[in-house]
Amino acid sequence: MPDYVLTPIGVLRSPLTRRADAPRQGREGAPDAWLEVAELFAAGLAGLAVGDVLIVITWLHQAQRDTLQTHPRNDQTAPLAGIFATRSPDRPNPLGLHRVTVREIEGRRLKVGPIEAIDGTPIVDIKPALAGE
Amino acid sequence: MPDYVLTPIGVLRSPLTRRADAPRQGREGAPDAWLEVAELFAAGLAGLAVGDVLIVITWLHQAQRDTLQTHPRNDQTAPLAGIFATRSPDRPNPLGLHRVTVREIEGRRLKVGPIEAIDGTPIVDIKPALAGE
Repeated sequence: MPDYVLTPIGVLRSPLTRRADAPRQGREGAPDAWLEVAELFAAGLAGLAVGDVLIVITWLHQAQRDTLQTHPRNDQTAPLAGIFATRSPDRPNPLGLHRVTVREIEGRRLKVGPIEAIDGTPIVDIKPALAGE
Repeated sequence: MPDYVLTPIGVLRSPLTRRADAPRQGREGAPDAWLEVAELFAAGLAGLAVGDVLIVITWLHQAQRDTLQTHPRNDQTAPLAGIFATRSPDRPNPLGLHRVTVREIEGRRLKVGPIEAIDGTPIVDIKPALAGE
């Protein structure tokens, strides 16, 4: 099968700078952070508003892509699980899904949260969350 | 910024064969379909079970990637919206998110649904859905 190439549309600016410091999920105490969308893609933000609930898709750039099984939540006493049965960032295509609320908008910068991804994480897509998603 | 390369982990086998026939969202009458995961990634499925609720991430291979604004739901009377304020498949990185339930498992084939993506759509990730997602 062919490969597919993602173009980052922006980057995350977060107070979290190390993977070891990041909560495992946004709802586990993650901070707010800024999505800085590149000028080239800024027209795609039209219509977004404070209070919107979004799904942000990131490229988890520090992930290991050759992992197929892992101990969930890095608990070595837990049985190994297939990576597709976990939310581990270490997976063949290291895409992160983050359900966030828009807190502020300044031009092509959106403050969102909570989000557990670290500073410098590339953003590859932004979508409105559907009800129940 | 650099580009990032996705490797398909499998392919969708669906009775839907044309984009024009596909519902806009799974919950709008979409059928069940089979995820056929490649042998190379089959170990990643360990632990998945019938009844699990998953987020399937697809590569919407028929999408147009140069679209930044669109009329939501292809309604030409609706005002133009930024692509990141819509779920249109036409977007810079044409990733589809599909919340599905596992109906059957046969080795490395998973029957899931409802899912509105068309036959032959590449699958790039599978994750367990979090509560409220």
